[in-house]
Amino acid sequence: MSINTFGHLFRVTTWGESHGPGLGATVDGCPPGIAVDAEMIQHWLDKRKPGQNKYTTQRREPDAVKIMSGVFEGKTTGTSIQLLIENTDQRSKDYGDIAEKFRPGHADITYWQKYGIRDYRGGGRSSARETAARVAAGGVARAALDALVPGIQITGYMVQMGARAIDRANFDWDQIEQNPFWTPDAKTADLWADDLDALRKDGNSVGAIIEVVARGVPAGLGAPVYGKLDTDLAAAMMSINAVKGVEIGDGMAAAMLTGVDNADEITMGPNGPEYSSNHAGGILGGISTGQDVVVRFAVKPTSSILTPRKTITKSGEAAEIITKGRHDPCVGIRAVPVGEAMMACVLLDQLMLHRGQVGDAGGTIG
Amino acid sequence: MSINTFGHLFRVTTWGESHGPGLGATVDGCPPGIAVDAEMIQHWLDKRKPGQNKYTTQRREPDAVKIMSGVFEGKTTGTSIQLLIENTDQRSKDYGDIAEKFRPGHADITYWQKYGIRDYRGGGRSSARETAARVAAGGVARAALDALVPGIQITGYMVQMGARAIDRANFDWDQIEQNPFWTPDAKTADLWADDLDALRKDGNSVGAIIEVVARGVPAGLGAPVYGKLDTDLAAAMMSINAVKGVEIGDGMAAAMLTGVDNADEITMGPNGPEYSSNHAGGILGGISTGQDVVVRFAVKPTSSILTPRKTITKSGEAAEIITKGRHDPCVGIRAVPVGEAMMACVLLDQLMLHRGQVGDAGGTIG
Amino acid sequence: MSINTFGHLFRVTTWGESHGPGLGATVDGCPPGIAVDAEMIQHWLDKRKPGQNKYTTQRREPDAVKIMSGVFEGKTTGTSIQLLIENTDQRSKDYGDIAEKFRPGHADITYWQKYGIRDYRGGGRSSARETAARVAAGGVARAALDALVPGIQITGYMVQMGARAIDRANFDWDQIEQNPFWTPDAKTADLWADDLDALRKDGNSVGAIIEVVARGVPAGLGAPVYGKLDTDLAAAMMSINAVKGVEIGDGMAAAMLTGVDNADEITMGPNGPEYSSNHAGGILGGISTGQDVVVRFAVKPTSSILTPRKTITKSGEAAEIITKGRHDPCVGIRAVPVGEAMMACVLLDQLMLHRGQVGDAGGTIG
Amino acid sequence: MSINTFGHLFRVTTWGESHGPGLGATVDGCPPGIAVDAEMIQHWLDKRKPGQNKYTTQRREPDAVKIMSGVFEGKTTGTSIQLLIENTDQRSKDYGDIAEKFRPGHADITYWQKYGIRDYRGGGRSSARETAARVAAGGVARAALDALVPGIQITGYMVQMGARAIDRANFDWDQIEQNPFWTPDAKTADLWADDLDALRKDGNSVGAIIEVVARGVPAGLGAPVYGKLDTDLAAAMMSINAVKGVEIGDGMAAAMLTGVDNADEITMGPNGPEYSSNHAGGILGGISTGQDVVVRFAVKPTSSILTPRKTITKSGEAAEIITKGRHDPCVGIRAVPVGEAMMACVLLDQLMLHRGQVGDAGGTIG
Repeated sequence: MSINTFGHLFRVTTWGESHGPGLGATVDGCPPGIAVDAEMIQHWLDKRKPGQNKYTTQRREPDAVKIMSGVFEGKTTGTSIQLLIENTDQRSKDYGDIAEKFRPGHADITYWQKYGIRDYRGGGRSSARETAARVAAGGVARAALDALVPGIQITGYMVQMGARAIDRANFDWDQIEQNPFWTPDAKTADLWADDLDALRKDGNSVGAIIEVVARGVPAGLGAPVYGKLDTDLAAAMMSINAVKGVEIGDGMAAAMLTGVDNADEITMGPNGPEYSSNHAGGILGGISTGQDVVVRFAVKPTSSILTPRKTITKSGEAAEIITKGRHDPCVGIRAVPVGEAMMACVLLDQLMLHRGQVGDAGGTIG
Repeated sequence: MSINTFGHLFRVTTWGESHGPGLGATVDGCPPGIAVDAEMIQHWLDKRKPGQNKYTTQRREPDAVKIMSGVFEGKTTGTSIQLLIENTDQRSKDYGDIAEKFRPGHADITYWQKYGIRDYRGGGRSSARETAARVAAGGVARAALDALVPGIQITGYMVQMGARAIDRANFDWDQIEQNPFWTPDAKTADLWADDLDALRKDGNSVGAIIEVVARGVPAGLGAPVYGKLDTDLAAAMMSINAVKGVEIGDGMAAAMLTGVDNADEITMGPNGPEYSSNHAGGILGGISTGQDVVVRFAVKPTSSILTPRKTITKSGEAAEIITKGRHDPCVGIRAVPVGEAMMACVLLDQLMLHRGQVGDAGGTIG
Repeated sequence: MSINTFGHLFRVTTWGESHGPGLGATVDGCPPGIAVDAEMIQHWLDKRKPGQNKYTTQRREPDAVKIMSGVFEGKTTGTSIQLLIENTDQRSKDYGDIAEKFRPGHADITYWQKYGIRDYRGGGRSSARETAARVAAGGVARAALDALVPGIQITGYMVQMGARAIDRANFDWDQIEQNPFWTPDAKTADLWADDLDALRKDGNSVGAIIEVVARGVPAGLGAPVYGKLDTDLAAAMMSINAVKGVEIGDGMAAAMLTGVDNADEITMGPNGPEYSSNHAGGILGGISTGQDVVVRFAVKPTSSILTPRKTITKSGEAAEIITKGRHDPCVGIRAVPVGEAMMACVLLDQLMLHRGQVGDAGGTIG
Repeated sequence: MSINTFGHLFRVTTWGESHGPGLGATVDGCPPGIAVDAEMIQHWLDKRKPGQNKYTTQRREPDAVKIMSGVFEGKTTGTSIQLLIENTDQRSKDYGDIAEKFRPGHADITYWQKYGIRDYRGGGRSSARETAARVAAGGVARAALDALVPGIQITGYMVQMGARAIDRANFDWDQIEQNPFWTPDAKTADLWADDLDALRKDGNSVGAIIEVVARGVPAGLGAPVYGKLDTDLAAAMMSINAVKGVEIGDGMAAAMLTGVDNADEITMGPNGPEYSSNHAGGILGGISTGQDVVVRFAVKPTSSILTPRKTITKSGEAAEIITKGRHDPCVGIRAVPVGEAMMACVLLDQLMLHRGQVGDAGGTIG
């Protein structure tokens, strides 16, 4: 991870601001011969697209992706792939308030302090709009993973919003696509709908927790000790706007366990080792076990709210700020496809690292 | 972060196994002219050293560091610094059981599956002994930080062990050095002592949460969007053995907040902006605000325990395993100086990145 | 240098194919607050642009650059800068011959062998058209260098074409912009014009040597031992299409010198050390001395020629090939601004590395 | 390439000074399961070892390598390998003259200007002694290449010393190991012996050109456009001390060729494409063709000579300097195994990159 690039071998460099001419991702190192087209990528972008329901920002961006390079006759060539998304809804408006005042909880103040200049229109580079480029890149990563690891499945969903968590007893994979919160618990989805209506009326916002699971990941992925699979996932998820915590498997709750409880006991199954439980989240010593890889991350509430908060101006004067405009009351919802994209990029990258260093030298059991 | 190296400009590459001839760190990119000697580094290594009290492994390693390069007449030269720690306690013993069976919750099985070969003596490269090299490198980073950012302070401490968390009302910085748990809450320390005694008798182990705080960090450090300060911290902490979760500021609990509550309101103080609270953990948009930088990470319980657990052998046969030997019942204790070291390395690295890209172009307020 | 990215801190990632929708460069890590606009970059692109005189390809591309991100109100923001050049002259034509046969001396065959797929239209990614993106990125680097190192000057020129070298006695900096060969020797320029006319009539092409000089480079740039200034320059120049050799200072001829002759003797001048000569090309131990930094590189003749050459087809059958189309008889001419761009990028990058690691800790003399 | 590390996936970080306690290489990313022991590495170190004949420095260092990590029961484990060479001949002597005066043509002055501190004992980090660490790392790379690319052969030899080049008509591979110059031309070896005797009597030194050839390299290695095989080789060779020029295939002479002459015509042989010539040095578009990979580099004369040269002191005063001590009159001789080591590291690294990105997706012909 290096400023605007992430990945070791499958490297994604993103660019673009919220209200500039466009944004995109330069995807370098993709394996050649992978079937990729704009439609496949668009599918994932549409999942993240604003304005789809009343719980996401009403900014209307088609977020249409163009493949500018690296794909020839429908297949990746092994050269750098440019994914371009032009901004169309650069509504001309008065940004004066945000230009002078800093929103509490927002990167306004730190970008200014760091760079001495910032594009205040819609947050510029610090806008979550940057994540559209990640989702586009993730579309390429998914295509490559599908080709190289048949049967792999990456699925994200919301498990908590504000104080209300899902009931795992209601968990139903098929529900995830059926509600605006991408949650497997239909009952909680209804309650969240009410919660969000109330928050919106209050000019308030709320945080959320997203879980992303990858099924069908082969054992052996992860490059100890500083390119561990969980290390890369932690970096990938923490780099998403507004994320404040990342967990693998039991996560922070692992602190409460004893060694006896935490041991995922091993037995031999027909296709290799099987585990009695998955406290580890599918990763031991930074390397995948073959179990489901399970990551969670917490997204803080949107800092752009309609309730006035105390702040200062660039010249240091005390002020109050209300952020009008089209902001998501719960940015966590749209973080679901972003988390999936990051998972896909990390897994592909680690698969390539593994092929490069280890090839087929890995050990078998039984 | 790339396999055995971490850092962008201040780059640390570690090497060595638990029971090989030694281990160490190659520290590259350190600023020149920094006063560094073995004694300074030894101070931090001693904090991590095993065998200091009954709550840590009784393996007795002096962990004496030698500076092999990069320091001349007491100052860093700007060239690569080799820090060498020879292993002295390579007790000859029978590792046969671990060589053939996989410990549940341990990297035994994944190292085998990944590489097709593993040094099973004491866990080889997957042993937490690797963290001694991190602590040594952190000693260099601290020296450089002290020179470049006068007044900076990095302090780690335990805040939870098993189900028992500290009482923040008892928080006393001066207590941290006074108990074997590096905790600011003396009362909880006493309770933890009892807890650990009981666990040890049971042949069990337990997890913990460590918090690391950096005070005196200047505003402006962090390289959006994939080299954010929190991204680098998340990767750094997650790369430590047995860590399953990382939090910045409010961490996972940020999901439960509303935007109104989460806003750290800003006022103008005599030395610049001041904040009403620090939900953000001193980082906004991946850039330091000048507040305390606050990170927490969860360490799972030691997987090497005396209670028998079900597992399999390399040939796939069902087995039970008990891990004898000198293992920490709570590895979290010794993770405290490791977390501090990682914080020091990340902050120095980000400071150098900032100097390199931005120099003194940052913005002022007021 | 890593596949499609070069640079340590000032990182340029290029993308795009000869006959795709466009090409460009993602410029990451640029210092903030640098005045940059499309016109400044266009100036350098125009120098490289095809079709300007009869000695360069008649393909007509305006090579108009758009700044898509990273610049706000005329200044760099410190975030990633996307430079986009759309392809306009994608003449629809029959590439069948090149699609099936491999041009001797061209990357056709190796791209196929490596990737199993290649964009044969105009050479795809292996086309020298990629260098337009480098020149655009170099425009940004020059702007930053001008701001950070006032008075720095980077100038490239041709010193040899085929068997005919310039006469250094005729060297005149002012001549460089006055002839189509960017050469400081006007007399040789006339002879080269005749040489090229004859070659063109023969359906042949020819190689060339380019020299790039940077004046006003401060002492101290270069990161020993694997990021040396000359190492980075060698990589940068060798990465340009068709380059087969790189020299610093006396270059290959240094092998013929004795130590007595090679010693650039040092005296003390009013502004610091002065040197009796510059065999070293301004670099000692990989670090700039403050003298002119002098690099030369050899460009082989264009492999796309009208004279038939023996080759094979993808199915392994013997064939002859003639490459029709609009090809430069001496690609070396248009390599001049490319060499300048690479020099600018490397110098800025090393300046940033130096600021990051060393700051103002460098030593003075006298 | 990044300061003290080179390589993308097979990464070598070197450390150590000429007269410190030792030096070494941390070799990261090596494939697992490769048979490696100290003896194999020692074989190559002995080739570079000083004091072997009257044409190399009489400094006597056994240069005995110890493997400190990463190898278990004779095989690489896939973890970082530490190769340690302790310095034994740290003759206590008076370095006062070099400490205060700068040797013309040496890195003394630039290290001082860059870092403000330098280890002047024997050149410190700028000493060619650093190349011992490269040769050790190269030994590991050779072992891995031998395992992964059976039949590959890497051979270096001297082709020019001062004004005298070898006669290619006398080229005999078997002669290379038979003379102190590692040259395939026995007759020229005799003449060089006389040349060097004369130079030594004069207190002078001389430059040389080394050629390194890799036979049996598979087609397809090289990562366009900034990780090209020739780009990496250029960087690798230019990073060696005292190197001033690098050539691939025809090198600088490619400038003198026409396109007709330069075309290596292709025919179909029993095992794939065959070429009528090898002007390209086995690399097209940055990717190996399967022909011999041919690199040459020029080493300037040793700057430490017995003939007085004009210089200045740190305080800026005019002075003369004579460098006594045990210096090679032609450092080029001992650069032969260094060039071989760099070739081995680059080829292995590119092989791993290729496996990682492309796997077995490459194209076939016929």
